[in-house]
Amino acid sequence: MKVLHGVDEVVQWRTTNVDRRFQSSGFVPTMGCLHEGHLSLIRASKQENDFTIASIFVNPSQFAPTEDLDKYPRTLQNDLAMLEAEGVDMCFVPNVKEIYPQGIPLHVDEQRGPFVSVLGVSEQLEGRTRPNFFRGVATVVTKLLNVVFPTNAYFGQKDFQQFTVLKVMTEELFVNTKLTMMPIVRDSEGLALSSRNRYLCAESRRISTAIYQGLEAAASAVNALDPGAHISRETLENRIGKIWEPYVSSGDFEVDYVSVAHARSLQELDDVSRDADVVISCAVYVTDREVKSTRVRLIDNVVLT
Amino acid sequence: MKVLHGVDEVVQWRTTNVDRRFQSSGFVPTMGCLHEGHLSLIRASKQENDFTIASIFVNPSQFAPTEDLDKYPRTLQNDLAMLEAEGVDMCFVPNVKEIYPQGIPLHVDEQRGPFVSVLGVSEQLEGRTRPNFFRGVATVVTKLLNVVFPTNAYFGQKDFQQFTVLKVMTEELFVNTKLTMMPIVRDSEGLALSSRNRYLCAESRRISTAIYQGLEAAASAVNALDPGAHISRETLENRIGKIWEPYVSSGDFEVDYVSVAHARSLQELDDVSRDADVVISCAVYVTDREVKSTRVRLIDNVVLT
Repeated sequence: MKVLHGVDEVVQWRTTNVDRRFQSSGFVPTMGCLHEGHLSLIRASKQENDFTIASIFVNPSQFAPTEDLDKYPRTLQNDLAMLEAEGVDMCFVPNVKEIYPQGIPLHVDEQRGPFVSVLGVSEQLEGRTRPNFFRGVATVVTKLLNVVFPTNAYFGQKDFQQFTVLKVMTEELFVNTKLTMMPIVRDSEGLALSSRNRYLCAESRRISTAIYQGLEAAASAVNALDPGAHISRETLENRIGKIWEPYVSSGDFEVDYVSVAHARSLQELDDVSRDADVVISCAVYVTDREVKSTRVRLIDNVVLT
Repeated sequence: MKVLHGVDEVVQWRTTNVDRRFQSSGFVPTMGCLHEGHLSLIRASKQENDFTIASIFVNPSQFAPTEDLDKYPRTLQNDLAMLEAEGVDMCFVPNVKEIYPQGIPLHVDEQRGPFVSVLGVSEQLEGRTRPNFFRGVATVVTKLLNVVFPTNAYFGQKDFQQFTVLKVMTEELFVNTKLTMMPIVRDSEGLALSSRNRYLCAESRRISTAIYQGLEAAASAVNALDPGAHISRETLENRIGKIWEPYVSSGDFEVDYVSVAHARSLQELDDVSRDADVVISCAVYVTDREVKSTRVRLIDNVVLT
């Protein structure tokens, strides 16, 4: 596996190695700290493309000054070994200056250079607690897609809103890359894999499986509907709440949001029928049972189509 | 000359006709109402590329609700004939819905979809009177470059700040197109060609040549400096003012701004030496002598490098 650090090197590599007219390339952008969720994207890419390219870059512009940029887990050597074992052809590992030539202060007011905003799907849900998060994501993905110029790119469903933002962005900016969303990979008990799970002890991780159980209870209620029947968002929220309640009472969970929204527009819905295009999603702060000062924000979702 | 209206058609055309590895394509995006300034860009592209592509699209997102979007001159049949005569291979003429699938209301608060902002070079000069102008320009050029995917794209120096914004954008988003700026084309008396000149009567157009004479007087003062010597911006402004003064007094001119700025950062300078990288630019409102209710905003600049 080729490991490249410079934009020019990557452009050189792909123009030399990939003839885009006859060969396809698949791209999996990551922030490192890889787990089976990332590997499922790599495997999808391997299956569907002649070349598979990954990137590892912890993108400062999607972190707020108050967030965990400095503490974000970095496990580069291990990540590269995992990608190599999967047969990745090239991994792009740029430094911050390479991607942001003018630098990238975390305070938005101080930022200079080009930024991509996707209006209409970035402000709600994750965007409410993280107002510039999707601007950072859309900007870095635009840069990476221009450098790597892949036929396909793969993203996980766990970050459903991120996929929606990037889908609107690539479709309406006419980016020459097709995006594919792959299902959430979960541990044996149902917890969605996330690089941030490692902040939690085993017991808190087990408790956190209730997050998914709550979403599943809501999804089952929708799936059990007769054709033409509706269920209110309130009923769905109650289903979820019943499963989460013990952990809210015990102080393990603090619910940031529960959303029942249209899966394309991300507009909230008042009620849902069985044939609607719906995403039920949430963010929950989990307080670690061993280290009480550790509080991790986990997200999850189920998509009903 | 092929005339295409759909994004998909253009992608199909260029993937069928242009092998980007061995053939170059040059692109000249326009808002139509073509004049010799545009044709100089077409000719540069013809000279330097295997294929030359133009586009004609009056981009709503760079107009404010108060500006002249509806009145902007549209001369499509004439434009196409001019492009055909120059040997353009393909001209892309999309409608608004094709470029903005979610529509494009002129009020920024109502806009939805992806937008590209270039922070640091968009807020001053033209950006002061037109706060969302360069966001509109950067967005539409991003879309057009993704659709046409040219090797080279050509822009006129008359819109110097536009070129700066697009240069920063393409360089820092790593867009796979090289931008070239071509010199301002002027009429026989020195007035910079502009689609908006046609709003003025012959006499007002002749008067407007003083705009360039003022800038030239400032440029001569810089060029006359001894090595190492400086001239203050105030002195330069006085040089310009002396030439413009009769027309300011008569009510023909109202000066919007005069700028003496670094040619790359567009930051204003207090003084200038002969070897500095400087752009002296201005915007002047000209009141038409025949139709007093007609007031046209003209821009011009000289670059000293």
